[in-house]
Amino acid sequence: MKNILLLGATGSIGKQTLDVIEKHPNEFKLLTIAIGTNIIKGIEIIKKFKPKYVSVINNKDALLLKGLFVNIEIGFGERGLINAATYVGNNNFKHIVVTAVVGSVGLVPTIEAIKKGYTIALANKETLVTAGHIVMDLAKEYNVDILPVDSEHSAIFQCLNGENNKQVKEIIITASGGSFRNKTREELETVTIEDALNHPNWNMGHKITIDSATMINKGFEVIEAHYLFGLPYENISTVLHFESVIHSMVEFVDSAIIAQIGTPDMRIPIQYALNFPNRLESNFGKSLKLQDVGTLNFKPMDFKRFPCLKYAYDSGKTGHSMPTVLNAANEAAVNLFLKKKISFLEIENIVYENLTNHKLINNPSLDDILSLDKEIKENILSKYLKGEI
Amino acid sequence: MKNILLLGATGSIGKQTLDVIEKHPNEFKLLTIAIGTNIIKGIEIIKKFKPKYVSVINNKDALLLKGLFVNIEIGFGERGLINAATYVGNNNFKHIVVTAVVGSVGLVPTIEAIKKGYTIALANKETLVTAGHIVMDLAKEYNVDILPVDSEHSAIFQCLNGENNKQVKEIIITASGGSFRNKTREELETVTIEDALNHPNWNMGHKITIDSATMINKGFEVIEAHYLFGLPYENISTVLHFESVIHSMVEFVDSAIIAQIGTPDMRIPIQYALNFPNRLESNFGKSLKLQDVGTLNFKPMDFKRFPCLKYAYDSGKTGHSMPTVLNAANEAAVNLFLKKKISFLEIENIVYENLTNHKLINNPSLDDILSLDKEIKENILSKYLKGEI
Repeated sequence: MKNILLLGATGSIGKQTLDVIEKHPNEFKLLTIAIGTNIIKGIEIIKKFKPKYVSVINNKDALLLKGLFVNIEIGFGERGLINAATYVGNNNFKHIVVTAVVGSVGLVPTIEAIKKGYTIALANKETLVTAGHIVMDLAKEYNVDILPVDSEHSAIFQCLNGENNKQVKEIIITASGGSFRNKTREELETVTIEDALNHPNWNMGHKITIDSATMINKGFEVIEAHYLFGLPYENISTVLHFESVIHSMVEFVDSAIIAQIGTPDMRIPIQYALNFPNRLESNFGKSLKLQDVGTLNFKPMDFKRFPCLKYAYDSGKTGHSMPTVLNAANEAAVNLFLKKKISFLEIENIVYENLTNHKLINNPSLDDILSLDKEIKENILSKYLKGEI
Repeated sequence: MKNILLLGATGSIGKQTLDVIEKHPNEFKLLTIAIGTNIIKGIEIIKKFKPKYVSVINNKDALLLKGLFVNIEIGFGERGLINAATYVGNNNFKHIVVTAVVGSVGLVPTIEAIKKGYTIALANKETLVTAGHIVMDLAKEYNVDILPVDSEHSAIFQCLNGENNKQVKEIIITASGGSFRNKTREELETVTIEDALNHPNWNMGHKITIDSATMINKGFEVIEAHYLFGLPYENISTVLHFESVIHSMVEFVDSAIIAQIGTPDMRIPIQYALNFPNRLESNFGKSLKLQDVGTLNFKPMDFKRFPCLKYAYDSGKTGHSMPTVLNAANEAAVNLFLKKKISFLEIENIVYENLTNHKLINNPSLDDILSLDKEIKENILSKYLKGEI
């Protein structure tokens, strides 16, 4: 039995994590949840899974839940999120924190959970993008496993099973191309948010779907892979693979490539992380048969078509505070796009401009990162409000 | 350093094994070779690699080599082949026997090498097809590793790396379809040996190329996989994959599929077997880039088009002496086809007829198998000579 602490329980990954927990009641116990403002969904989850601790964003919602559930501890805000990540359950069981919140808000609770010695099932890639060196050093210090939940990183992790990491030649991350893969850059000028949210292969949350359309998501994955698997950026490549059937690959020094393949269903990598190193039987979706798929297509990645991917590689290689800027600028820009305040192509421009204007902070501390993250986001919002974007 | 004992040094796998040894002189030492009648090629190998022991088929050739190489032990015939498989080299080094001879002649030397405690790098699939239960039981008794060299089995073996075999749902073996994959059964009536030897993806020996064209080779691989990985036939499937880029796959209980991918170059799996569990750097061929391949195609296997594959599944499921008949009848028939004595489609007929007429011997001993193998082959030859085929 394992205690699951689920940050972001009402989001896409959160819901699918609950599916996995529900399917294996003898393996997993939902210990805590952190949710946002979707209180109705939160109440459903509380009734069904009976967690010991629940955190929400606003005090008002916390008070409401306290009235409804007298036997459950309720918290709110940043403190509540940290509590949900560090709560102590039955100590005979392993504690696993699933970080499925969106954006850099996942950083501090992840760090606190690591300090507690809890295993991290990492679904919040912004954590490693914005502060990879700090998180990985801390995980090493506290001897904590950071297990990937992203389908690509779970694939790479599975491909590395039983292998010697020193014998890796290259990590090859596949990319579906996102919602706009068949559009030219000219056609991108007029796309709407509804177009952007219509991903061809994966049913995901809003932010990651937009990040897929700009391809910055693949760039985040490159940075995440750099930290998770300890490889230089020169040894991490990307390839367009329209069907999202091969989730990613690892090439070894002998030119053998190991790939992980399957139906695009996030419950498979979620379950793999929660139960690692053992696989659990499941019948999520159906088994993928390549004879039914028929054809798998691959194309070289196009950095001109997808400049955000290039920005991500460059930010990663520059390192220090640059990836924090990449992430913060993108978060703020995507937020404005999702609120229909800016056009799709403005996301790229905002990211580019912020990277270009940034004065690098060497080896930034956690405080440096948190204040830089805040500063970049506030600047972008303020520029928008002043009509400068 | 490892001692390599190479049975079948002048054949296709033999030559590529020598390439691997030559590329890594600090890892591998060629201790013995067994060759057939290609003495000129044999002399080249002896001069270059200086093995301690050489076996040939005929006494005449042995005498010739004795005259040429006074410091090398020379043997011949079945005894010579066994000596080449069991020779004792520097005992500080591991001994690995590469069984790259063609046909059931590989069986007895493999058994003797296992009794000696030598690791087997198995390139002779007929050994497991004809006597899988005996070989695997013996390997267990002597605590000997049987490492696959076949690209498909090496792929499966690599996919199982670090995994729990009890969590395997299915082994999926890919099949290129062989030389005649684009021909109908009607068109097969007039194909020539030259057509048959023109394999689209792999450059292999004659017998295996014909076996690929009849698809019995894939059937042998199914039986081989059954023994190597301990799975029932119901959990071993095949899929047509024209590009031979995915060498085979394993699906686990959680529906995750792990695949091994690479350039079709046998030196990669040979090297993997010789240096297992470590991968060695190599630049055989070039790294495979899926964006260069562009498209991978898959189709369901067609048992009507390829009846020999069905015969192999049926023989495997029946077990006991049936797979021995399958292999012996096929060997004799392919031999006649390669000598232009029978048509391509007669191979299937001969196999079918021998399977149909066979009276099953339960749990056959090694002697049963060896005499059945001989009997089947002699019968077919005698029928041909009497004009009954």
